Amino acid sequence: MRRLERTHIASMTGYTPGEQPREPGIVKLNTNENPFPPSPGVFEALRDFDAASLQKYPEPDCRSLRQAIAAELQIAEAEVVVTNGGDELLRMVFTTFCAPDSCVLSTEPTYSLYPVLAALHQCKFVGVSLDQGRGLPSALPGQVRDLAPSLVLIVNPHAPTGRLFPLQALHDLACAVPGVLLIDEAYVDFVAPKQEHNSLALIAEHPNVILLRTFSKGYALAGLRLGFGLGNEALIAPMATKVRDSYNVDGIAQALGLAAWQDQAHKAKNTARIRAERERVRAALIAEGFEVPESHANFVHATPPAGVFAQNLFADLKSKGVLVRYFAHPGDALRITIGSEAENDAMLGALRG
Amino acid sequence: MRRLERTHIASMTGYTPGEQPREPGIVKLNTNENPFPPSPGVFEALRDFDAASLQKYPEPDCRSLRQAIAAELQIAEAEVVVTNGGDELLRMVFTTFCAPDSCVLSTEPTYSLYPVLAALHQCKFVGVSLDQGRGLPSALPGQVRDLAPSLVLIVNPHAPTGRLFPLQALHDLACAVPGVLLIDEAYVDFVAPKQEHNSLALIAEHPNVILLRTFSKGYALAGLRLGFGLGNEALIAPMATKVRDSYNVDGIAQALGLAAWQDQAHKAKNTARIRAERERVRAALIAEGFEVPESHANFVHATPPAGVFAQNLFADLKSKGVLVRYFAHPGDALRITIGSEAENDAMLGALRG
Repeated sequence: MRRLERTHIASMTGYTPGEQPREPGIVKLNTNENPFPPSPGVFEALRDFDAASLQKYPEPDCRSLRQAIAAELQIAEAEVVVTNGGDELLRMVFTTFCAPDSCVLSTEPTYSLYPVLAALHQCKFVGVSLDQGRGLPSALPGQVRDLAPSLVLIVNPHAPTGRLFPLQALHDLACAVPGVLLIDEAYVDFVAPKQEHNSLALIAEHPNVILLRTFSKGYALAGLRLGFGLGNEALIAPMATKVRDSYNVDGIAQALGLAAWQDQAHKAKNTARIRAERERVRAALIAEGFEVPESHANFVHATPPAGVFAQNLFADLKSKGVLVRYFAHPGDALRITIGSEAENDAMLGALRG
Repeated sequence: MRRLERTHIASMTGYTPGEQPREPGIVKLNTNENPFPPSPGVFEALRDFDAASLQKYPEPDCRSLRQAIAAELQIAEAEVVVTNGGDELLRMVFTTFCAPDSCVLSTEPTYSLYPVLAALHQCKFVGVSLDQGRGLPSALPGQVRDLAPSLVLIVNPHAPTGRLFPLQALHDLACAVPGVLLIDEAYVDFVAPKQEHNSLALIAEHPNVILLRTFSKGYALAGLRLGFGLGNEALIAPMATKVRDSYNVDGIAQALGLAAWQDQAHKAKNTARIRAERERVRAALIAEGFEVPESHANFVHATPPAGVFAQNLFADLKSKGVLVRYFAHPGDALRITIGSEAENDAMLGALRG
């Protein structure tokens, strides 16, 4: 039979989401979900939601939620676009700013969806290796000068390493990039307040920076598919008014997202608990001989002691009902989501025995 | 400031959704929403939904809902893709099948999102006028031969006329189209059973036909953003596994959609009630001197008597708190959504005096 899809789509490979087993009893530390419940306000908003209101279309532009986000962050409403998960923002950024044949740069490793989106948009994807200390690639400014990318994507805190790149390096990068610099802050809610990591300064100073945020991680709402983008109005407007599907976020997600957003105290408490567990898990893994760099996200990147292979550990853990992620780069390592206290104990116990 | 969005996006105009006023008391007959509540099963599913389950990602491929749809329609699961509203399916069809500079054909008038999606994908959009009797354009087969479109889009039942194009004409068109024929069946649930309009035969016979269905209209769930596409597996697979955002439908929408789908009896009752109202409203408008062709959707297309201008009627109704839609083509006319008995009476009363 003749193929009808476009040639580049026929020849590309799609994104593979992490395993989402539905069997009970699995300790699921593979897709960086939040082990603790969302705000009680979310439960209330769900209970109070009237299904009859679903007869009507939702607010097309998520105005109530955008206003709440803008007010809390002290930016303009026009600097916010609400999306069906962070993934929708990523796709829209490619569609809006990346012409076919243009170059898109990220680190290597990075979020594995990026090269898939690049292939879908017929862009050339270049991954630049992290430096020896796993910092922002020292080769990046040179590559940016040489390749003039339409888009540079940096996950910060970085996945899968958990590293937090300093703001100054991102300011420098924003100045060097001729196109858009997208900073994927999916994990930013897990950065300790003492880091004083205020990335909003980036969008205030650079007309080419977009920050990606999500309700999936810090707000414990991965199942709700809700994210947002922040940036200069001139960057946000074409996505919000032209590229975005007309009603991209459903009425329930808007209502529950608003409830979660209005309870910043709950998010602070939830993420502090995860940070405490992160330090405990990290210390325990180090005591077992793993190399575990400081993490600013809700996972740790653990390189096993010499002679032990991460891929074997991954398989062994899986056979014991503990799901983590195996990464071959940088170095043979596991990426382990920080779960609840009991889940982390189960993971550590399975690793030991 | 330099523009960073791609040139064709800078120069295009976005889609304007219909007015969604939030003030109470407005009789809202402008965006073809369903005036009657969704299935009691939807209310139950919402009440039973545990917000804590939102901590985890949803089923990435909506498997449970896809299986239920496939079972009910007696087709294969691989012939179904579930989407974030029908609009997401439309965008995916363009991205997957329409190369830049290719030609996309539809009728004139048609769903006003189509030319916007064509502009976004840098396609040439050609609208072919309905024939004198408002049937499928008689010029269409010739245009298809001349222009070899990558995509032909037919809304059936048609909007804004409410006309139902016969299946034989669509079979003939599918044979003529070298690319994809998308039949947008957003309103198909309002076709009377006595019409014996079984469009599933189209996808069984033609490897290039995609049917669009939605929960927004017949299932009264516009606010939930849930639609689906049906077609040959070779057409569906590239959208489902490559072009689709990885988790495109949230967990609550999947659960509520499944509940709505499992109550086909409720949908049948709901849509029968709307059909009865449609006939009553049509007769009343005809009695007032309007020309109102038979409609197979949840709206009527009403051309005012000679000397009366639809645009004036539109403004007059609006000033009385009744929102409908004004169309300049074909002919100066109103598109009036069929509301509840009380809403329809309010609209008719406002028209009369």
